[in-house]
Amino acid sequence: MSRRSGTLHLNAFLMGVGHHEAAWRLPESDPFAHTDVAHFQELARIAERGKLDSLFLADSPVLWNNVGRRPSGALEPTVLLTALAGVTRHIGLIATASTTYNEPYNLARRFASVDHVSGGRAGWNIVTTAGADAARNFNLDDLPAHRDRYERAAEFIDVSRKLWDSWADDAPLGDKAAGVWGDQDRIFPPGHVGRFFKVAGALNLPRAPQGYPLLVQAGSSEDGKELAARYAEAVFTAQQTLAEAQAFYADLKARTRAVGRDPDGIRILPGIVPVIGATEAQALALEDELDRLIRPEYAKRQLATTLGIPPDDLDLDRELPAELPDEDQIEGAKSRRTLIVTLARRERLTVRQLIGRLGGGRGHRTFAGTPEQVADAIEDWWHHGAADGFNIMPPVLPSGLVAFVDHVVPILQRRGLFRTEYTGRTLRDHYGLPRPANQFQSGAAVPVPVP
Amino acid sequence: MSRRSGTLHLNAFLMGVGHHEAAWRLPESDPFAHTDVAHFQELARIAERGKLDSLFLADSPVLWNNVGRRPSGALEPTVLLTALAGVTRHIGLIATASTTYNEPYNLARRFASVDHVSGGRAGWNIVTTAGADAARNFNLDDLPAHRDRYERAAEFIDVSRKLWDSWADDAPLGDKAAGVWGDQDRIFPPGHVGRFFKVAGALNLPRAPQGYPLLVQAGSSEDGKELAARYAEAVFTAQQTLAEAQAFYADLKARTRAVGRDPDGIRILPGIVPVIGATEAQALALEDELDRLIRPEYAKRQLATTLGIPPDDLDLDRELPAELPDEDQIEGAKSRRTLIVTLARRERLTVRQLIGRLGGGRGHRTFAGTPEQVADAIEDWWHHGAADGFNIMPPVLPSGLVAFVDHVVPILQRRGLFRTEYTGRTLRDHYGLPRPANQFQSGAAVPVPVP
Repeated sequence: MSRRSGTLHLNAFLMGVGHHEAAWRLPESDPFAHTDVAHFQELARIAERGKLDSLFLADSPVLWNNVGRRPSGALEPTVLLTALAGVTRHIGLIATASTTYNEPYNLARRFASVDHVSGGRAGWNIVTTAGADAARNFNLDDLPAHRDRYERAAEFIDVSRKLWDSWADDAPLGDKAAGVWGDQDRIFPPGHVGRFFKVAGALNLPRAPQGYPLLVQAGSSEDGKELAARYAEAVFTAQQTLAEAQAFYADLKARTRAVGRDPDGIRILPGIVPVIGATEAQALALEDELDRLIRPEYAKRQLATTLGIPPDDLDLDRELPAELPDEDQIEGAKSRRTLIVTLARRERLTVRQLIGRLGGGRGHRTFAGTPEQVADAIEDWWHHGAADGFNIMPPVLPSGLVAFVDHVVPILQRRGLFRTEYTGRTLRDHYGLPRPANQFQSGAAVPVPVP
Repeated sequence: MSRRSGTLHLNAFLMGVGHHEAAWRLPESDPFAHTDVAHFQELARIAERGKLDSLFLADSPVLWNNVGRRPSGALEPTVLLTALAGVTRHIGLIATASTTYNEPYNLARRFASVDHVSGGRAGWNIVTTAGADAARNFNLDDLPAHRDRYERAAEFIDVSRKLWDSWADDAPLGDKAAGVWGDQDRIFPPGHVGRFFKVAGALNLPRAPQGYPLLVQAGSSEDGKELAARYAEAVFTAQQTLAEAQAFYADLKARTRAVGRDPDGIRILPGIVPVIGATEAQALALEDELDRLIRPEYAKRQLATTLGIPPDDLDLDRELPAELPDEDQIEGAKSRRTLIVTLARRERLTVRQLIGRLGGGRGHRTFAGTPEQVADAIEDWWHHGAADGFNIMPPVLPSGLVAFVDHVVPILQRRGLFRTEYTGRTLRDHYGLPRPANQFQSGAAVPVPVP
């Protein structure tokens, strides 16, 4: 392998009792754990034991699918991550929230609050939220156009950064003798007037320990990549093959450079679903057991929706229809639809096989093997320009996270690829990224106040 | 005193380092504690040691006043209360949130999430948010009309209750053998279409331990009282005299009866700022010390805004001007403006004296005395039809809460007026209120699942 210096970054993507849609049917699983804070507190402690960089929660403000299919609903991520902050000391906490269905003042404040409460460990996964069903929960009849959602997202981030910078770090004085608590001249009201938002006043919260939360992005459409290049400090992405991952990595680093940012200022983490066994046979047996527990009828309906065709056009024992609507005609999650079609065509999967692959990792790379093999798979991509780290998506929780932390992490540590202790306090520290300077203050970045 | 059976309810209204605006200048106060989660965790533990019913956080999405005046900004209440849930087991957690500047789907979900995470201890103080400055943080040029804000609030609560009831309590099945996680027929999408909101789909979270959070209301304008009568289960109110408090109490109970609700289903808690000393002289000395630490120039400006006049029309050493704009001409917090003018006229206060009174409790009743005297003041109103309990507003935190919990609560307990142990698990249990039945299910209320 070619050599690469530094170490990799690992994020634990937490989802209910696991990323595999049938995980809840295993004897070991509590089918109601996905709304049980104690379950997530256990996961957070396990991930911190493994010195992982961060925890991540996906989200969408909509009840997906049929509740018959799998555990449905989720605790709101900023609430849940605050509860996890209370039982951890170091690990980062990344919550998904939509720019289409929130107001900047409220959301910027909520993330700044999580950053204060956690001592500088908050991250925001910025999403524009695909799907007409979500739009219909927010006074709309249909999903806004893809381009409009991304333009709103960019302005939303601009406004949020103005709000996060609306207090100089040294605006609070606490001068009891003079009776002057803060310096009003070091408050910078945004006075923002844009296409989507008018936000006049300063945030009602002093600047956060990290300045502002780590900005994370996860959509891989053209618009999504442009947004990431401009704003993101970490990117989660679904990539099936080394070649695809290398192309994505090179493309996004180049786009980041093209907008005048340091390409090292954006960490790219493809997802991996590690199905871990003491032997390769055991890993494959677990994967097989999980796939056999999928009930395909729900997944078939969802697949048809994603592809923009009627469910009856899909036959479980045949490949996808030769003719499918173009990506351009779909207003939903474009990159996900493209990924699914590419995977199905490349490997000539039947609909049933495709559903099995998607049920395991929803389009992310699934890798079944021993801890040594999983570590090799991670090192391979990391050494070959495909990843700065990985978004770890255990198929079953907590057991899959325990297996990763207790058996894969030590191998990565022995190889010098991963930290053995936390060396910083904040999420940005873990990702090796600087605390951002305040855009309204001249001079260099202000040191992080120790909470 | 006339006899009254039952016991009273006590809520701890937490505000930074105390309700007195100069509390931060005392030697004992940490001027940065208002954004320090550890400070609030200490307060929560003290209040729970005193067996209080609940904690309460006020809020407004705006940076008030000049930051020179006092500790400014606040952690977002649902985030902060989630952090407090982690260090307590029984005490209720009531967060303020605006119906004017939120969307029902997001807010209903966040409160349901806090209720899940806390095991049924969430409450929502419903406010419509006065002030043009807040409006200008949310795409508006000015505050919406008072009546429109209250009509939106009513529809917001209706939609929220539909969302909270959009899952039958028994919709989750967890049937692993059949591969059926939930019963789609027991999901009830609101399909709401109203003047202010269209919300089609069910909440993405199973029904909460309390069904929905305790609904609290705190505005005392005509519109506010009508909203409380229709929806509120607890009401916080500012009342200066026994006669005024009795009139408010009788009026609100009558309005509640008039809309067909049981008047016992709404708990009325006037605020009290207890300035506690081992002797009456010590209490008065503390009150005097605090008032002398107020810098009147900030307060004068705020008072002028509330009254709708230029600051120069106020003279610190004279009474309020004889001519003031009518309540009807003011679009802000009407009941607060009326309370201030009534107080000033009745007691013929100079502007400086009025500022002192408002600085202590912002229009709430301030009472300085020994623990025995404070207990008497509480018992008096409770026995005479003025209160079902009290909203305790310590002038200095944590010391004022410690004094109340350690010295006043034991007296109330000895008199049989207050619980000596928690007897229930949820916030509604503490207030003696039933878990609401699901409006979309026939039959009686479903028992609370034990978390």
